[in-house]
Order: sequence, then structure tokens, then C-alpha cells
Amino acid sequence: MNVTMQMMEMHAKDMPMPGMDMAMMQECIEACSACEQACTMCADSMTGAEMAKCAGMCMNTADMSNTTMRMMLRPHGMHAESAMAMMQASVAMCTACAEECMTHAEMSEDCRMCAEACRQCAMACQKMMDSMKSMMPAE
Amino acid sequence: MNVTMQMMEMHAKDMPMPGMDMAMMQECIEACSACEQACTMCADSMTGAEMAKCAGMCMNTADMSNTTMRMMLRPHGMHAESAMAMMQASVAMCTACAEECMTHAEMSEDCRMCAEACRQCAMACQKMMDSMKSMMPAE
Amino acid sequence: MNVTMQMMEMHAKDMPMPGMDMAMMQECIEACSACEQACTMCADSMTGAEMAKCAGMCMNTADMSNTTMRMMLRPHGMHAESAMAMMQASVAMCTACAEECMTHAEMSEDCRMCAEACRQCAMACQKMMDSMKSMMPAE
Amino acid sequence: MNVTMQMMEMHAKDMPMPGMDMAMMQECIEACSACEQACTMCADSMTGAEMAKCAGMCMNTADMSNTTMRMMLRPHGMHAESAMAMMQASVAMCTACAEECMTHAEMSEDCRMCAEACRQCAMACQKMMDSMKSMMPAE
Repeated sequence: MNVTMQMMEMHAKDMPMPGMDMAMMQECIEACSACEQACTMCADSMTGAEMAKCAGMCMNTADMSNTTMRMMLRPHGMHAESAMAMMQASVAMCTACAEECMTHAEMSEDCRMCAEACRQCAMACQKMMDSMKSMMPAE
Repeated sequence: MNVTMQMMEMHAKDMPMPGMDMAMMQECIEACSACEQACTMCADSMTGAEMAKCAGMCMNTADMSNTTMRMMLRPHGMHAESAMAMMQASVAMCTACAEECMTHAEMSEDCRMCAEACRQCAMACQKMMDSMKSMMPAE
Repeated sequence: MNVTMQMMEMHAKDMPMPGMDMAMMQECIEACSACEQACTMCADSMTGAEMAKCAGMCMNTADMSNTTMRMMLRPHGMHAESAMAMMQASVAMCTACAEECMTHAEMSEDCRMCAEACRQCAMACQKMMDSMKSMMPAE
Repeated sequence: MNVTMQMMEMHAKDMPMPGMDMAMMQECIEACSACEQACTMCADSMTGAEMAKCAGMCMNTADMSNTTMRMMLRPHGMHAESAMAMMQASVAMCTACAEECMTHAEMSEDCRMCAEACRQCAMACQKMMDSMKSMMPAE
């Protein structure tokens, strides 16, 4: 069990939503971190004229993944509606970035691997968001 | 006219949505930047036990504002649906942060000023998002 | 006088080094912010094969400028030696990025403008660092 | 072997310094990432009046660790002198943050764990910097 996981468990009680699935959140944090790293590398390696769109989308995805990750690391600052909206935005961006990257997957191993990290991140954020939504009081 | 504005105008043609209001986007970028700065300072100055929530929310808002700003600064990476979702998340977070900050506005000048920067950012993001939405093709 | 400047003046007393030149720090914050924005745009616009180095350096400069700016916005977290080391790193990166950008200045207006923002940031960080160094107690 | 490691090995040839120790760089990336996460959580959990310094330093350390990590993830943007200066700044900040956190280690488990992550990051950055320095041509 790594340090972040230990600290997250210690602070489960500080989350404004009781019963939050901290293991699922931890998986989501790791998927965001892996996605940020892959997208940062993929953006750095885009060298052809046709790659400007891919590089720009990867940079956006890297920043959004980092921001989503940091939000989950702040139990005291957790605002459920905003966190779910951020995850929703991450799902949209990661999905679009994975699609763009896959169009170059045959010629670029970076893009193929980055697309995979984006898909994993989109799935983890979707799962986390669904879990949080199910815990919200009915309006 | 500052450097960012000149660069943005030069790249208006690279935006995937023709006719994007670059002056409005520039105002939104400035509101995001001001909000990031005010929230970073407000989070640093929270010193009382009851201030953990305020500090955590301010740190989230600072990160989200920076990410939203950077997305607007990347015309080639612009993905309209994801950008609008990010703005939506920023509106939610900035509004919640402004509300939290206002509960301490009488005892903390930082919180009062930070709340104002958050409200400005929420309004600018809402306006930008509405403008983009009106340009989307009907489904 | 903008919000950040007002908040900075309010917190001059919280800086661990008495007599810090807050107006100079404010100029440095603005130069870092402008540099982050210009570098983010320049990295997004690099589309040729020979531009990978320029894009990568611009992304590094954008991240470093943001980090340097945020450090100055946190009077309570100010650790003079680390802040000066960060400024030193920013001077090195901004200078190298400006040089790289200038090699494409004739064919890219982005690069010419970005180089200028990098030089301004390097100068502002150098000035701030020199001022802080002059205030350190002799060892 | 995770995705980042695979991508890093693929791009070892793009590093401007031939023979860079990619396994050591990978360890440094992981230490920076762990430090960013621990510091983000520690800053969020600081709730007492005497904790403003600790929170501010943790936020600085989180931002610097992320920036240092991203620089290592960009082989095309690698500028050796600037990267070493950034690592030097990270060593200074992580060491100062670990010292500050340790003064609260008895009353805060967050601070104890965060201090440990900071020390690991300082060591990894020092090691990486020493390795790069040994490869620089004598002036």
C-alpha cells in the first residue's frame, strides 16, 4: 500500500460524502496520474505538421488529468457537484484524445500507448462519477 | 493589446469553430488567471481550524482556473464539447468557492477579494460557454 | 491596482524576509504569467518536424513560470533559498527557450512573440532573485 | 513495466545527452509524483493556526515536484542546465518542507508521511542531478 493510499484512507472521514469508495478513488487517482504522464510524453513527441491537433489535445488532457487527480487528493476541499462536473469533462477530453491518438496509432507507438492511458482514465473517471452520483440525495 | 491577445487573434483561424469570439475568450482567460492568483493566495492565508474547507476549495479552484485558461490558449487542441464541459465544471467550482469564501468575508479580506475573483471567473466562463453552445450545430 | 496586487500588499507582513519589494514581486508575477500564456500558445502552434524541440522547451517554460508565480503568491510558504533556486531555474529555462524560439522568429510570429515574453520573464526573475539575495544575512 | 517507463525507454534516443540513465530517471519521476500527491494531501489537511507555513510549503513542493516530473517526461524539450537547476530547486524545497513537516510529525500522521515522501523526492532528484552533472562535458 503506497503513501497516497494510506493518507487517503486516513482522510476518508473528512470527505463530505460518507461511505465514499476510497479504493475506487485511489484507482481513479492512479489512472489520472498515468494519463497525465502518457499525454505529456505524447505531446512532446509529436513532430509532424499533421500532429498539432494531437499535441494540443494531449496537453489539454494532461492538465485536466492532473487537476482531477488533485481534486480527489483534497478531502476538505471536496465539493461533490464540482468534482463530478470535472470528472465529466475529463471523460469527454480523454475520450476525444484517445480517438485522435488512435488515428496515428499505426505510425506512432506513443499515440497507441497514450490512447490506452486515456481510455483507462476515462473509464476510471466515469466509474467514480457514477458511484458518487448514486450517493447523492434525490432532489 | 498584450502579447496573449495578439497571439490569440493570430490563431483565431486555427480554432475548430469558425467565428469564435476571440475578445470574449480573452476576457475569460484573464478572469481565469486572476481567479487562479486570488485563490492561490487565499488558500495560503487560511490559518484557522475552521478554514480547511475554504483552503481546499480555493486550491481546487486555482487548479481548475489554470487548466481552463490553458485549454483556451490551445487552438489546435480545442475540442468544443470538452472545453464546454471544463467551463461548466469551473462555473460550479468557482460558484461554490465564492459562497464558501463569503461566509468568512467579514473576518477575512482575503476571502472577500477571492470570492469576487471567483464570481468574475464563473460569469466569464458561463458567458463563453453560452457563446460556444450557440455556435454548435443542432443535433 | 488589481486584486492580486492588493492581496500581495496586505500580506507583505507575512513574508519571512522583512522589507521584500512587493512591487518588484508583482512585476515578476505578471512576467511569469505572460510567459506561461505565450509559451502555452507557442507550444500548441508548433507544427513542423523541426519544431519538436521548440514545443517541448515551451511546455517546460510554461510549467516553470506557473510554478514560480505560485510560489510568489504564497507568503506563508515562502522559503527564501528554494524560491531563489526556482527563480534561477526559470532564468536558465526562459533564456534557453528564448534562444530556441529566436531561431524560428523569421518564419513564425508565435516564436518571435514567445521569445520576447521569455526574455521579459528571465529579466524579472533575475531582478527579483538579486533583490532577495541582497537581503539575505551574510553567512 | 508501466506505460510511462515503456515510453521513456522508447525515447531515450531523443534525449540530448546520450547514455542518460533512464531507469534512474524513471525512479525520479515516481518519487516526484508520490511527493506531489503527499504534499497536496498534507496541504489540504492543515487546519491549525500554526499550520499556515506548513500548508504553504507543501503547496510549493507539490507544484515544483509536478513541474520537475513533467520536464523529465519531455525528451525533446530537455535542456540539461535548466533541468539540473530545476532539480536543485526541488532538492532545496523538498528538504525544507520535510524539515517543517517533521516539526509536526508527532501530532500529525499526514506530516510524518509527507516528510518521508519529500525526503525520497529530494534524494531521487539529487541522484539524478549528480548523474547528469557527471555526463556534462568539462568546460
